[in-house]
Amino acid sequence: MAFQFICSICHQKYDPASLVWRCSCGGVLDVAPFPVHFSLETTQKRFAGLWRYREALPFDSSFTDWQQITMGEGSTPLLAAGAALPSVFLKVEYLMPTSSYKDRGAVVLMAKARELGVRRVVCDSSGNAGVALAAYATRAGIDCEVYVPASASAKKLKQMAEHGATVHSIQGTREDAAKAAIAVVEQENLFYASHIYNPFFFQGTKTYAFEIWEQFEGRVPDLLVVPVGNGTLVLGPYYGFQDLLAAGLIKTMPRILAVQAENCAPLARAFREGAEVAQPVVNEGTIAEGIAIAAPARNRQILAAIRESQGAIITVAEADIVAAHRELARSGLYVEPTAAVAYAGLSTYLRQADDPELSIRREPFRQGTQTAVVALTGSGLKASPESILTRPCDHDN
Amino acid sequence: MAFQFICSICHQKYDPASLVWRCSCGGVLDVAPFPVHFSLETTQKRFAGLWRYREALPFDSSFTDWQQITMGEGSTPLLAAGAALPSVFLKVEYLMPTSSYKDRGAVVLMAKARELGVRRVVCDSSGNAGVALAAYATRAGIDCEVYVPASASAKKLKQMAEHGATVHSIQGTREDAAKAAIAVVEQENLFYASHIYNPFFFQGTKTYAFEIWEQFEGRVPDLLVVPVGNGTLVLGPYYGFQDLLAAGLIKTMPRILAVQAENCAPLARAFREGAEVAQPVVNEGTIAEGIAIAAPARNRQILAAIRESQGAIITVAEADIVAAHRELARSGLYVEPTAAVAYAGLSTYLRQADDPELSIRREPFRQGTQTAVVALTGSGLKASPESILTRPCDHDN
Repeated sequence: MAFQFICSICHQKYDPASLVWRCSCGGVLDVAPFPVHFSLETTQKRFAGLWRYREALPFDSSFTDWQQITMGEGSTPLLAAGAALPSVFLKVEYLMPTSSYKDRGAVVLMAKARELGVRRVVCDSSGNAGVALAAYATRAGIDCEVYVPASASAKKLKQMAEHGATVHSIQGTREDAAKAAIAVVEQENLFYASHIYNPFFFQGTKTYAFEIWEQFEGRVPDLLVVPVGNGTLVLGPYYGFQDLLAAGLIKTMPRILAVQAENCAPLARAFREGAEVAQPVVNEGTIAEGIAIAAPARNRQILAAIRESQGAIITVAEADIVAAHRELARSGLYVEPTAAVAYAGLSTYLRQADDPELSIRREPFRQGTQTAVVALTGSGLKASPESILTRPCDHDN
Repeated sequence: MAFQFICSICHQKYDPASLVWRCSCGGVLDVAPFPVHFSLETTQKRFAGLWRYREALPFDSSFTDWQQITMGEGSTPLLAAGAALPSVFLKVEYLMPTSSYKDRGAVVLMAKARELGVRRVVCDSSGNAGVALAAYATRAGIDCEVYVPASASAKKLKQMAEHGATVHSIQGTREDAAKAAIAVVEQENLFYASHIYNPFFFQGTKTYAFEIWEQFEGRVPDLLVVPVGNGTLVLGPYYGFQDLLAAGLIKTMPRILAVQAENCAPLARAFREGAEVAQPVVNEGTIAEGIAIAAPARNRQILAAIRESQGAIITVAEADIVAAHRELARSGLYVEPTAAVAYAGLSTYLRQADDPELSIRREPFRQGTQTAVVALTGSGLKASPESILTRPCDHDN
């Protein structure tokens, strides 16, 4: 079957082979809904990894090249958070080939590029997404060019280069790097392997929902707690649970509790104000650099998804992120600061249980009787030594 | 049932609760063989992770605390090495909670300490083992003291401390750190959580064999290619395949091809010379610092296991390690230099197929018809920037 892009605003459809990356109306694109066919019985017979859900991914069944591209990403552990947080589970998303959940999106995006016959892709990043895209591009036999701000971590640039990517260092901000990438994409009509704009990336992160469904033995938790910057771990899982609903495999969607760093929280502000669109903010500096996105491109979709799930968007203070990071390390879980945000968010949420601002939710989360899954998104080994200091930044994830 | 230690030399038995760490004759200890009961049908119904093989681990069936201690370690991917190496598979052992295969040993060792009611352990390390032990100790609610040489990587010490370990920095060599740890262990009669001496560590690394057996659907590969320093990934898998043989689940053991860095290769020299015991060497400096062990404590056992498997011990040059590291990175696999050694070793072995020194093996490895599994043991994110340079070192793994 042919998979199509659909504009999130005007619903115009496009053929992905056309290499369009944004609708002519300016709207961001999604993959148009397609029927999924899979069951717990089928997946449980398969080896670990997100390709056990391949009937729900946008590939023709004749496409088998994913077998060469996969590095076994997915099937991450779900751990009980411990006696202090009954019925709370931690999903260890940094247990991934490139040590962040971005591998879910990167492997699907690069497999799709391969299926489309693409030989060269362009992307922009300053962090985990760029590393993941570079790693999967080389496995897919695709040339990868990554545009990065000159301020990006030398360690991550080194890794991208070791994976064979061509790294273009751009003087200026993270946004300037994106502009440089888009200029090349448009001039040369190239495949834009953006983890923000390319909807196939979100088709990968939707497997986060499928795994939780499998780990809950065909049920879903009550609350999904995720960090949010560009929304890859809000929209992907949201699409995944929609797929499960459409296939009749679940009856309700979990509420999504998305967490931002207080110092860079355009989505939380829009949520509080009841706005459909988030206005850009000034990033005041946060150690959660992976979600320090002042103007998220998919802000409208993120707000709509959270509201549809009857969830909420909240913020956490820097001190709370530091405390959450410390608490996780003391329980053996070594994450980068960004990856402590969701955990900090759950604590904040439980403290704020009676806050009327959060009254959009159906009912308060009842610890011990309702279940919550908290995402731990990136390994502590990825953090730069200096990232434990508060400093302004304009990084994407 | 009660599990016992048995001396590898004089076969004297000990109760592990006695906290003995070495036989009075000086021999290193093993866990005395015990019957294992498990089947592919049982394990395949369980979630991913090495605890799916719990009937083959040395715990009473009433012990369930492992459920709080596990971080989902194990069930690492097995990837085809690609068209250039038909029937060769890569086992991605760095896809672990602390990013090295050491988690297999650390989780079983700390779970055992917990079962024994131990509240405080002592160990020594300068690298991955210390980090893994610190992480699992804190999950097990056990105080952990790590003795490290003052030269150890600051990054790894920071992680141990964040996991709540008390880090004692010892002026001197890696061996001096071990002596300081042993002195405290003996003075205060403490549990020595050594990844070299404590046999429960090897009961964890034996699950490497079980996973390969499961991933080969109840069969075994012809050749197992592993790096060797202290032998945790030789002896553990050897015990695992012995368990499978004893349970009648397999008929033959794979040949073990163990690989050392040419610049620090006491085991390879003893193997070539037909010696039963390896003499210490002078470490001439290698980027494979994780296996730069000049005097491995379990050398006699390692040599015997390799010979019994009809395998071999070979060496690789520094340039081959660097080339293997580069080749792996270009295929998307980011490892630390030590973890490129086995991959380099397979290439060397295939080149040396007619070398009479290797004639102990039953038959040459026939690429394309026989199967080999190559271990990739540690993540590239763990490597210090300076570790890409050749330099003398006395690190353990």
